[in-house]
Amino acid sequence: MSVIRKMLQRAVISAVAVVSLGLLTGATPRNYLADGKAPLPVGIAGYTFAKFDIDRSIAMMQRLGVHYLSVKDIHLPLNSSQEAIDAVLAKYKAANIQVYTVGVIYMKTKEAVDQAFDYAKKCGVPMIVGVPNYDLLDYAEQKVKEYDIKLAIHNHGPEDALYPGPGDVYERIKQRDPRMGLCIDIGHAVRAGTAVDKAVKEYKDRLFDLHIKDVSIAAKDGKAIEIGRGVIDFPALVKSLNKIGYKGVCSIEFEKDMADPLAGIAESIGYFKGVMAAEK
Amino acid sequence: MSVIRKMLQRAVISAVAVVSLGLLTGATPRNYLADGKAPLPVGIAGYTFAKFDIDRSIAMMQRLGVHYLSVKDIHLPLNSSQEAIDAVLAKYKAANIQVYTVGVIYMKTKEAVDQAFDYAKKCGVPMIVGVPNYDLLDYAEQKVKEYDIKLAIHNHGPEDALYPGPGDVYERIKQRDPRMGLCIDIGHAVRAGTAVDKAVKEYKDRLFDLHIKDVSIAAKDGKAIEIGRGVIDFPALVKSLNKIGYKGVCSIEFEKDMADPLAGIAESIGYFKGVMAAEK
Repeated sequence: MSVIRKMLQRAVISAVAVVSLGLLTGATPRNYLADGKAPLPVGIAGYTFAKFDIDRSIAMMQRLGVHYLSVKDIHLPLNSSQEAIDAVLAKYKAANIQVYTVGVIYMKTKEAVDQAFDYAKKCGVPMIVGVPNYDLLDYAEQKVKEYDIKLAIHNHGPEDALYPGPGDVYERIKQRDPRMGLCIDIGHAVRAGTAVDKAVKEYKDRLFDLHIKDVSIAAKDGKAIEIGRGVIDFPALVKSLNKIGYKGVCSIEFEKDMADPLAGIAESIGYFKGVMAAEK
Repeated sequence: MSVIRKMLQRAVISAVAVVSLGLLTGATPRNYLADGKAPLPVGIAGYTFAKFDIDRSIAMMQRLGVHYLSVKDIHLPLNSSQEAIDAVLAKYKAANIQVYTVGVIYMKTKEAVDQAFDYAKKCGVPMIVGVPNYDLLDYAEQKVKEYDIKLAIHNHGPEDALYPGPGDVYERIKQRDPRMGLCIDIGHAVRAGTAVDKAVKEYKDRLFDLHIKDVSIAAKDGKAIEIGRGVIDFPALVKSLNKIGYKGVCSIEFEKDMADPLAGIAESIGYFKGVMAAEK
C-alpha cells in the first residue's frame, strides 16, 4: 500500500474514531461513516494563500474546516534547513493540518530536481507536485526510484510550453516508473480543451493529485471563478472520480480575489462538497 | 452534461432571469426554464444580516451572486411610510436584488395582522412570511382574501409554543384559503424532529417558501452551522423539491458567526448549489 493511501486511511480511521467517541466537531467529515462511500478529502493548494503568511493561512483553513495542504514554496522555501522545515510543519500539525504534498515545483535544471527531492524528503511527504523539463524526465525518474517519492506532474493550460493539458503529461510518463503520474489542474486542463471527466478515467492509473477550480470560459482566456459559477461540469467530474475509485486529495486552488479570498474559497469548497454529497 | 450545453443553459438562465426581474418585479419567482431542470433560485433570509445595515448587506449579496431577498423588519421597519419603503426598495432594485417576500413577522394582535398586510402591500410583495397566533388565523385568512397576499407560516423549532414544526402549521391551514401555506424552516424543523424531505412532499400543495440552513444535531440543542457540516441530508431534500416541482425561492438563513458571516454564507450557498447541480 502506498504511503499516501496509508496516510488517508489513517485519517479515515481517526475520523471514525472521533465520531464514535461522540466528539463530532463538524471539522472532520462525518460522512466517513459506515457505508464506505465517504466523500473524498478536500485540501487546499498552497498558492491559494500566496498573499498571506502561514499563520493567516492556517486561520483560514481552520475556519474552512480543511485539513489537507499542498505546501507551496512561498510559505516554505525550497532551500530551507531541516530545522526551518520542522518548525513550519509543527505549526501545521498543531493546527491539525496534514501537509500531504509539496508544490508546484518547477525543475529546469538537474540541480532543481535534486533540490526538489531533497526538500520533499526533509518535509516527509510521499509526493512532489512538479514540472520537470522534458530533458530532465529521465533524471527525475532516477530520483523517484532513489527516494521512493512520487512525482505528480502538473498541467498549466494553453500558455504552458511543456504540459498544457493532462494528456501532455500522460504521454511522457506512461511508460515510466509507476510512481510518476499526474496532478491534473482541472481549470487549466479545461482551458487547454480537455474534457476533464474523461481525462480522469483515461489517466486513472497515474492520477495522484488534483487542483480543483472553475473557469469562466473553456478557452485560453478563461478566468478563475468560484466553483459552480463557471463552465466546468463538477457532477460529471465527481462521477468519474467515484468511478475510478480515486484515492487522493481534491485540493481547491482559488486564484480570484487573492487579496481577500476567504468567501470565494468557502463557496468553492461548499459547492464541491455539495456535489460529492449528492453523487455518493 | 457537456461544457457547451452547460454554458448555453447558463446563458438561458441569465437571460430569463433578467427578463423575470424586469417584468415580474414583486412576483414570486417561477422556475426559470421550460423543462423545469434549472436549479432553484437561491435567496437570503434577511435575518442573516441582522448585524449589518442595508448597504453592507447588499455588498455581501452582490459578492455572493444572490438576487432574491426576504426582507426582515430590522432593515425595513413595519411602521415605515410608503416613501421610506420606496427608498429602501429602490436601493435593492439598483443592486439587482428582488425583494420577493417580507418576514418573519410575528402577529400577536389584530393590529399586528393589519400592520403586516398593510406593510406587505406597500412593499409590493405577493407574500408574507409570518407567525400569527392561533386565535388570529381566522382574521389573517380574511386579510389574505382582502389583499390577495399569501401568508407563509414559519416554524421555529421545539421552543416555539405555536409552530415547532411544519406539521403544526399545515394542520391549522390545510382547510383554509389556498393562499395560506408554509415557509418551512429546515433547521428548526429538523430540531423539532421533522424529516424535511418527507415534509416537503407531504405539504407540497401549501409550500410557499423555505429557510435553508443546517444544524449540528437533530435535537433541540442543535446549533446553526454551515450547510453541509451538520446533520441534514440536503441531497434528499433537493430530490424532494425537484419531485414536487417546487416553484419558490430557497432562502439561505445563516445564524452562525453573525458578526462575520460572509464565509459561512458563501460555503452554505456553494454547498446547496452543488447539491442542486448534481441532483438536476
